[in-house]
Amino acid sequence: MLGNDYPGQVCSIARTLEVVGERWTMLILRDVFLGLRRFDDIRDDLGIARNVLAARLERLVAEEVLVKAPYQERPVRHEYRLTAKGRDLWPVLFELVAWGDRHAPAPQGPPVVLRHRDCGGRVGAGRVCERCAVQVTGHDVAAELGPGAGPTHPLRRRHPLVVHATI
Amino acid sequence: MLGNDYPGQVCSIARTLEVVGERWTMLILRDVFLGLRRFDDIRDDLGIARNVLAARLERLVAEEVLVKAPYQERPVRHEYRLTAKGRDLWPVLFELVAWGDRHAPAPQGPPVVLRHRDCGGRVGAGRVCERCAVQVTGHDVAAELGPGAGPTHPLRRRHPLVVHATI
Repeated sequence: MLGNDYPGQVCSIARTLEVVGERWTMLILRDVFLGLRRFDDIRDDLGIARNVLAARLERLVAEEVLVKAPYQERPVRHEYRLTAKGRDLWPVLFELVAWGDRHAPAPQGPPVVLRHRDCGGRVGAGRVCERCAVQVTGHDVAAELGPGAGPTHPLRRRHPLVVHATI
Repeated sequence: MLGNDYPGQVCSIARTLEVVGERWTMLILRDVFLGLRRFDDIRDDLGIARNVLAARLERLVAEEVLVKAPYQERPVRHEYRLTAKGRDLWPVLFELVAWGDRHAPAPQGPPVVLRHRDCGGRVGAGRVCERCAVQVTGHDVAAELGPGAGPTHPLRRRHPLVVHATI
């Protein structure tokens, strides 16, 4: 079986992929950015085996991309939140989305539309707001359902207490 | 064995990863961006099995990310070149590099430094030139060996006829 590391590669891409390049990891992070932060919510959205999801989340916590934090006391329940290191992956996810929207588009159009919170403009190429021309970060944007979003899109699944999705 | 697709996911990230998310594919694309375009050069750089490299290249050609073109007539020899669709992956690779440089740095510093051709400034966060503040594309930048580049870095291996590396 192939491993997940890239021995012999002195390369920043290889080091990033060693943390987030495993199958499903990017989609798990997408869900957390979109506001799905609980194990069962992510599992229901992705439809993957519990042991695979548990292994990916454990790795992301060990790498300090996510942190596991209680959201309720009795009984204790946990959710996964992005750390600053994790939030710094937003540009990677943004560019993966942008390429997919452009070169492998969904038949009905993009599933997600990003808007600059300050002015309401759409976020376009280079993460630049099409209205006010500012380059935005994940903190500056709100994710809306786009025309291609299906009935089970993660934005429809997120818990109502999660107000700000950042991708 | 796990497949490489993401069934049930209506998601631009999933569609991008179905094209470029397989193990080694991003590093193959990195090599092509850096100017390694021939099968044996990429194989020597990555140290992977010929059948794995052949399968990845075949997939990238089928997806029109790369095109296979002759660079010599007798005997006929081919190289792999980026299409416009392939060049559009540059922002994805840039952001993978940027995250790795920041959060999983090489002990000696970044292996590659990108400079804006027009003014010589370093390209920083958001793909913005630190000298002239323009947001650059892959066409606008030159890759230089950085302090962390090892003795076998792909920039040292590229064929002298390849003048412009674009990452």
